[in-house]
Amino acid sequence: MPAVGKHHPRVEGVQKATGSYIYTPDIILPRMLYGKFKRSQFPHAKIVHIDTSRAKKMKGVVAVLTGADLSYNFGIYLNDEPFIARDKVRYCGEPVVAVSAISTEIAVEAVEQIVVEYEELEPILDPLKAMETDSPLVHPDLHTYSVSPIFQAKPHSNICTFVNIEKGDVKKGFDDSYEIFEDTYWSPTVAHAPLETHVTIAQVDLAGKITLWDSTQSPFLVRRELAMSMGIPLNKIRVIVSGIGGGFGGKSYTRIEPITIALAQRSNNRPVKVELTRQEEFEITVHKEPASVYMKTGVTKDGILLARKVRAVYDAGAYAEGSPLVVRNACFTAAGPYNIKHASIEGYCVYTNNLISGPMRGFGTPQLTWAYESQMDTIAAKLNMDPLEIRLKNCIEEGHEMPSGEILKSVGLRQTLEQAAEKIGWKDYRPRKDYGIGIACCHKLSFSPATASAFIRIDEDGSIQLDCATVELGQGSNNTLIQIAAESLGIPFERIAISQPDTDYSPYDQSTTGSRSTFTMGNAVLLACEDLKKQLIKIASRCYGLPEDELSIEAGNIKPGGSDECGLPYEELIQRHFNPRKASLIGKGLYTSTAVLPDVKTGKTPRASAFWMYGTQVALLKVDRETGLLDVKKVVSAYDLGKKINPQGAETQIEGGVIQGLGTVLTEELIIENGSVKNPSFRDYHILTMMDSPEIVPICVEVPHDEGPFGAKGHGELVLNATAPAVANAVFNAVGVRIRDLPLSQEKTFYALCLKSESSE
Amino acid sequence: MPAVGKHHPRVEGVQKATGSYIYTPDIILPRMLYGKFKRSQFPHAKIVHIDTSRAKKMKGVVAVLTGADLSYNFGIYLNDEPFIARDKVRYCGEPVVAVSAISTEIAVEAVEQIVVEYEELEPILDPLKAMETDSPLVHPDLHTYSVSPIFQAKPHSNICTFVNIEKGDVKKGFDDSYEIFEDTYWSPTVAHAPLETHVTIAQVDLAGKITLWDSTQSPFLVRRELAMSMGIPLNKIRVIVSGIGGGFGGKSYTRIEPITIALAQRSNNRPVKVELTRQEEFEITVHKEPASVYMKTGVTKDGILLARKVRAVYDAGAYAEGSPLVVRNACFTAAGPYNIKHASIEGYCVYTNNLISGPMRGFGTPQLTWAYESQMDTIAAKLNMDPLEIRLKNCIEEGHEMPSGEILKSVGLRQTLEQAAEKIGWKDYRPRKDYGIGIACCHKLSFSPATASAFIRIDEDGSIQLDCATVELGQGSNNTLIQIAAESLGIPFERIAISQPDTDYSPYDQSTTGSRSTFTMGNAVLLACEDLKKQLIKIASRCYGLPEDELSIEAGNIKPGGSDECGLPYEELIQRHFNPRKASLIGKGLYTSTAVLPDVKTGKTPRASAFWMYGTQVALLKVDRETGLLDVKKVVSAYDLGKKINPQGAETQIEGGVIQGLGTVLTEELIIENGSVKNPSFRDYHILTMMDSPEIVPICVEVPHDEGPFGAKGHGELVLNATAPAVANAVFNAVGVRIRDLPLSQEKTFYALCLKSESSE
Repeated sequence: MPAVGKHHPRVEGVQKATGSYIYTPDIILPRMLYGKFKRSQFPHAKIVHIDTSRAKKMKGVVAVLTGADLSYNFGIYLNDEPFIARDKVRYCGEPVVAVSAISTEIAVEAVEQIVVEYEELEPILDPLKAMETDSPLVHPDLHTYSVSPIFQAKPHSNICTFVNIEKGDVKKGFDDSYEIFEDTYWSPTVAHAPLETHVTIAQVDLAGKITLWDSTQSPFLVRRELAMSMGIPLNKIRVIVSGIGGGFGGKSYTRIEPITIALAQRSNNRPVKVELTRQEEFEITVHKEPASVYMKTGVTKDGILLARKVRAVYDAGAYAEGSPLVVRNACFTAAGPYNIKHASIEGYCVYTNNLISGPMRGFGTPQLTWAYESQMDTIAAKLNMDPLEIRLKNCIEEGHEMPSGEILKSVGLRQTLEQAAEKIGWKDYRPRKDYGIGIACCHKLSFSPATASAFIRIDEDGSIQLDCATVELGQGSNNTLIQIAAESLGIPFERIAISQPDTDYSPYDQSTTGSRSTFTMGNAVLLACEDLKKQLIKIASRCYGLPEDELSIEAGNIKPGGSDECGLPYEELIQRHFNPRKASLIGKGLYTSTAVLPDVKTGKTPRASAFWMYGTQVALLKVDRETGLLDVKKVVSAYDLGKKINPQGAETQIEGGVIQGLGTVLTEELIIENGSVKNPSFRDYHILTMMDSPEIVPICVEVPHDEGPFGAKGHGELVLNATAPAVANAVFNAVGVRIRDLPLSQEKTFYALCLKSESSE
Repeated sequence: MPAVGKHHPRVEGVQKATGSYIYTPDIILPRMLYGKFKRSQFPHAKIVHIDTSRAKKMKGVVAVLTGADLSYNFGIYLNDEPFIARDKVRYCGEPVVAVSAISTEIAVEAVEQIVVEYEELEPILDPLKAMETDSPLVHPDLHTYSVSPIFQAKPHSNICTFVNIEKGDVKKGFDDSYEIFEDTYWSPTVAHAPLETHVTIAQVDLAGKITLWDSTQSPFLVRRELAMSMGIPLNKIRVIVSGIGGGFGGKSYTRIEPITIALAQRSNNRPVKVELTRQEEFEITVHKEPASVYMKTGVTKDGILLARKVRAVYDAGAYAEGSPLVVRNACFTAAGPYNIKHASIEGYCVYTNNLISGPMRGFGTPQLTWAYESQMDTIAAKLNMDPLEIRLKNCIEEGHEMPSGEILKSVGLRQTLEQAAEKIGWKDYRPRKDYGIGIACCHKLSFSPATASAFIRIDEDGSIQLDCATVELGQGSNNTLIQIAAESLGIPFERIAISQPDTDYSPYDQSTTGSRSTFTMGNAVLLACEDLKKQLIKIASRCYGLPEDELSIEAGNIKPGGSDECGLPYEELIQRHFNPRKASLIGKGLYTSTAVLPDVKTGKTPRASAFWMYGTQVALLKVDRETGLLDVKKVVSAYDLGKKINPQGAETQIEGGVIQGLGTVLTEELIIENGSVKNPSFRDYHILTMMDSPEIVPICVEVPHDEGPFGAKGHGELVLNATAPAVANAVFNAVGVRIRDLPLSQEKTFYALCLKSESSE
């Protein structure tokens, strides 16, 4: 293998390391304006009056826009969100007036001159209360919204989606159980916190064509959502993606694009740039859904999981955004990566007047992993079993049936458990005072069925351009896809360049989400390479005067099969074919991953996902009983990724996931009081840095997936799931304290220790 | 036909009319620098010393570059031109030092601070003298240059290409002739004079990738020439083309790109913009080759052309650029659009220390048309024949053999002669004092074999994006190609959008030159549409449960053949196929036009060109005997374009050609003294405007070409050829004066009239 499984420096590495990589905020266009918003200070209020007169008169102000100016709604699954608040605001920070001006300073000043009069409404802030039938409604018009047919909303309620999946007879399961466990786990609002905030530049030409330079993970999804919202053809919108400074799911769908376009449409065809401040990023982009997960589990005396009932309530916040899909997809994993005979899963996605939720790395599954893996150790402790042993006893394997009815294949969970335990020395671990060890495993499905397409072009000098719309977010997709192409074509990695996504040119790709790129786009790239090789073989057949099937390809050369000669390199074939002037050949690949849409009512499907991801983490830590401080010493993190295409990339994905996972368990929580964020800055919202990182040992387990490119499948999303419960289980192991709501902040741990010592005194 | 043959407003019309169309000069990039040149004031000199010390010290100056800094040469057919003058200058105005600075003003000032010491060399300014064996040499190293194998250069001479084509026995032909005519005709240096001057922005990133925003007709040719020059892979260069404000061939090859890149490579990765002033545009871009054409013709008593000897000497100027191909291709047409038994053609492309020549609309053929059509009327007058009659008697037709050996097909010349004559009322024309009528016809081959490729993408809403690298220069290619696609797909014109060329994305196209786009790219677009329809039929076959061959396409719908139902529209098929999420389908077309490279020594080929263009113009004018002023009243211009795809576009092409043709015959000439241009401004170099336009009657003759899309072929280049001789013939008809060197300026005509009246006194 010349390219796959080998380390290659990042193709954009030099530019990133030297600060010369172009991110969307770096883009300056001629005559560009800057957009700013007047935002709501209330979580729920009627807009009574808006006075923009002083702002409109200011020199340098070009457009001042309110909800009265446009009637479009957007929303990928429910069109519930106005381009700019109309009549009502539904969350603290919601844009009410937008301004474009020749400088940010003038725009900010103009916003300050705007006066909005509100009539406060009762805010709906608790998702559990919001589900009650007599709750006031965030969206009284829910029944009028267009809802994607893959979801069911409850009209005249705050439930914008609910899911129910049943397997076996859960009542019987509980009846047959030796012991039953019932707990509720809480995951708070967590921010994606990409280092690059959301930024969009919109320009609308006189023919109505909209061009966006957009920090998005999903140029084609954004294009579709906007076209549907505005009722215009897809080819009237162009989305160009530059380098992205982190997404983590927060840039999956449409967010500030509509309001930016609306400004641009009123700004005399001048481009308008909206770049969120850090505070705005914390307040008006999406967040990980806060979730309450009730979990009831029945087990046999020897620790076999017999029945499980899960009731997960996700707070969608003011608008649905991607949350319906998050909830639906997460529910497929809710019973955990265990072979359970009887399961009942209920998932709710609930409107409140909190911040808008949306997909974040893990896509709703970390909230569930937090529940099922915390409870697993509670069960083990009660049954006096080893946490590793109980997991190995129950873990899913090839051929097992999921609650959805899907029969699994290519399951590497056991290997991740075994290898992680082996690496940390689980069996030989000797308890030490205040030290603890904890294990957790997890699984997740991918975003499927989904389509990706790719072009691979070879020029007459043999240099190659790969054009696909996978967005390089820092995850390393450029390297991975180039390696797949280099491997398939049998040429050096360095000969291939890759284009940035641009919807006017790049072939369609659904999105860069759900860990789907290596698998889905990887397959599209392989098909493109096959198509290209077929064209080259055809040319070679003419050159050699031999039928195509008597030729073979070896290391970028085509020659008669079995011959010793070195053959004709691709470029030589192209030069001969297009003599005297030259041209390029282009291979095209279009791949749709295999999965079957579940029944919208029962959630049943023979195949919920094209592939599943599996992993295990073990954490070793020390608890400071005096302060509650958790000092994580080491995390071993083993993930089944089918095949390492890009070993270093795979390992750094795992490392990044551990650090982000540690953030969610140790420090990260958006503090929200009465709908308003109290810590919207990196001073008060603590993400971990490399300096906070413990020793991380990444392990790549390779259980090949027969449909994956070279056996590979995605893993980038799942890698943070197990960290939080592994740490919590280690804390329990160290000091016997069980905390069920994240994060295990120093204060919370300290108080839990106090409480425990009080109760044991 | 829903789209072809119908008028559709220009797709970029609104933007152009409102000034919002983006041309390359409109592009501003962050941190952009501006490049300026110190240029030679001598046509031929050694560079003795360059003092850049003061410029380098100036605040705001980033790079100061001389020939010593880089050793690359460029040149599409001969790599004879240094990126920036090294050791020697070879024409007046040649860049010797290049500067990048934070503003144009600072760059200009820095250039003024640079002192260059020269040692003057004897300039070689007369191409005929330059051909003599004892002439000093412009390029003493010619024998070391790499020369494209399709050309023959004469080492140790100034002849960078020569062509010789023989048919029959020209000596015998002259021996058999009743009368022999021998004349020499002169065409001066003419500027392309696009309203947009050359502009290039280059940016080089730290990984060495070069991005150009370039006002070029040939993004892929430019890319290849640069990659070859610098010895880097093609995928290390990206060429992006915005709107172009006119090209006329002057933006066909690489010109200011190399020096701009060299500056950018030394400017800390900052982009550098070089936008030529009007004076620079006149001096350092290419010009139409000045040419001296000797023509000897033998005829029978009744006006049959028996033998013709042509010796055409083209002044290439200081560097070869595109001139070798211009000369070679033009020579195929040198005997005129007549069926001549014996012909001998010699063409020379000669280095001098004049301005650089290169392709201009007509590609070397207007200089020949000027000769053969002027002489045709001299012959007719001598034989007392009607100029129309002698042309009809000799004009080429289907099945005739060209001097190259090619047997012609699809020849509409006779129809253009007849229809133009009919329209002006040739037969009923009654002479009036000082009024004259003149006719001229012409022919031209296209740039072939050549390859074009196109993508056509249909999105799930049925909107369509056409992606190809044909450059819209104002010629209307966008409309034409969209019309071809709309016709093939059976959908409305308005549903299709077209992308701008970008070599990192767009499929390969050779160039937008030689009137090749309608024919070659048109065919690629058709193939792409066929490919797309095949994919749609495949999907429809699944939807209907019918074999593919039982389905038919009608007006953008697919249905069972012969059925009355309206069928399934494309978008419906895509939505069903990619349910629930959507994707696009892409059709791909790659077309290489049919032609056979001529033998480099004999010029023989069974097919010199994929198609030939034919046309006739008739001019009616009045001569003011007192002042020499020519008042052209009317021009009828008939061209055979196979099939009108875009009728209004075809007609405006003809009109534009007539106006440009009138410029070359009435006013246009770059006055060059000792190698230096004396009229480098629009004040002194007069191009005609709409205000100067006579009545123009365009006629589109449709003799379908069996390989053309819907029978169409190009015509845009040839449309100026016949204007000059038609006007000169009309002057002869009016006042009996024959002027053989262009232009027929007022002064020249006045003096010719004086001379004639003197000699007749």
